[in-house]
Amino acid sequence: MNSLHFTARSSSNGVVERDFTVGDVPGVLWSPVSAADRAPLVLMGHGGGNHKKHPAMSGRARLLVAGCGFHVAVIDAPGHGDRPRTAHDEAEIAELFRARAAGEPEGPIVVRYNDHLAELALPEYRATLDALQQLPEIGADGPVGYWGINMGTAIGIPFVAAEPRITAAVFGQHWPDVLAEKAKRITVPIEFDLQWDDEHISREEGLALFDAFASKEKSLHVNSGAHKELPRFEADSAVRFFTRHLGAATTPSA
Amino acid sequence: MNSLHFTARSSSNGVVERDFTVGDVPGVLWSPVSAADRAPLVLMGHGGGNHKKHPAMSGRARLLVAGCGFHVAVIDAPGHGDRPRTAHDEAEIAELFRARAAGEPEGPIVVRYNDHLAELALPEYRATLDALQQLPEIGADGPVGYWGINMGTAIGIPFVAAEPRITAAVFGQHWPDVLAEKAKRITVPIEFDLQWDDEHISREEGLALFDAFASKEKSLHVNSGAHKELPRFEADSAVRFFTRHLGAATTPSA
Repeated sequence: MNSLHFTARSSSNGVVERDFTVGDVPGVLWSPVSAADRAPLVLMGHGGGNHKKHPAMSGRARLLVAGCGFHVAVIDAPGHGDRPRTAHDEAEIAELFRARAAGEPEGPIVVRYNDHLAELALPEYRATLDALQQLPEIGADGPVGYWGINMGTAIGIPFVAAEPRITAAVFGQHWPDVLAEKAKRITVPIEFDLQWDDEHISREEGLALFDAFASKEKSLHVNSGAHKELPRFEADSAVRFFTRHLGAATTPSA
Repeated sequence: MNSLHFTARSSSNGVVERDFTVGDVPGVLWSPVSAADRAPLVLMGHGGGNHKKHPAMSGRARLLVAGCGFHVAVIDAPGHGDRPRTAHDEAEIAELFRARAAGEPEGPIVVRYNDHLAELALPEYRATLDALQQLPEIGADGPVGYWGINMGTAIGIPFVAAEPRITAAVFGQHWPDVLAEKAKRITVPIEFDLQWDDEHISREEGLALFDAFASKEKSLHVNSGAHKELPRFEADSAVRFFTRHLGAATTPSA
């Protein structure tokens, strides 16, 4: 098993940020300065073309760490952030830009490329969770959530479907093509975000993916607006979702 | 113009409850004990077969009054609560119970009966708002919201469509048949609740009504579960919606 190595540490406004590696995968762990002995962990997945410290990631982490006392970790997806791009990555990105410039649908390319990345990322997320659970402030038996929209959903759905340690998840904004079959294996509570005027993902596609989850408890949040206009208040809603399902940070009884 | 007469007053846990009448329509106004000079008002509409002080009403009011410092008012719908039932009310209720016992769809009866009640209730809501705005703690130029699910939506959609003083509204769980046309005239921000496994209102019907609103800002909250299983946390979400759109209770500058 790959262990976790911390490579940098900083802190601001009550949040400690520690860069780490697990094997050759770089990640970041945000934690409260004054932590309970143990606290819940939320793993996040970043969007396509972004990276582990994109403001959407650090902003959501701040809400969970400063607001709830949770730990939050993200790793760079294959070909993203501090990781090298392969020739395959370059070719797929070029194809996406070509389709975009030509006004062709992006869906088929994003679906295919994200599915490829998810296959690579799955063992990396599993190894990261293994390593994080070795930390005394997280522990092996605490609650763990997953939060990822866009490419974070393409990676997260197969990960959560295969990972019994994840007990609640927030997903959204992806196509059902390859993900619906995997969503049918997910039974933990989920919250799912969808944009009503998404120029890439049709309403029918978004609703079909939400419908596929086998979860007894599931919530869909639809907002008016285009693909990139997911309202900020949905991040607050996701934080409340995790607070309901992972519980507050507490001192263990033993 | 009918003025407002207070008929009873009590208070508990920081919330003042005042019964009132406007003409022959009985209502209840909940207000903070220690109010700002003026505070936003939320008008609510109760569900079919219920009344102005049903726990769903008093519970939502407590969240808005104790949590936000708002005023909240509900009136009994025609044929409900402390109001007399007409022969038409009795006939429609008997027909609903007959259909329910026979396992026939309730929708056509509820749609027709609620549309009739909405027509009667509209001038009553308008007169109540007129009268409440005469109170110094509410005032004529403060923000006003509307919150009603089920029959509260059947009354609320035509009311809000015709009432420019309402600047934000929470609706949900009704059929599009007569309401969609009126929803097309509503442009203020809305939040809309829908149950994914509603045994009375199909997904297509619920989504069609949400889609009809002309509002630039609209949010749909779908939850797994049957018609009566709308989760409690949707009330908290509605309160946050009103806080975003009506603003906090403040002391006026003049």
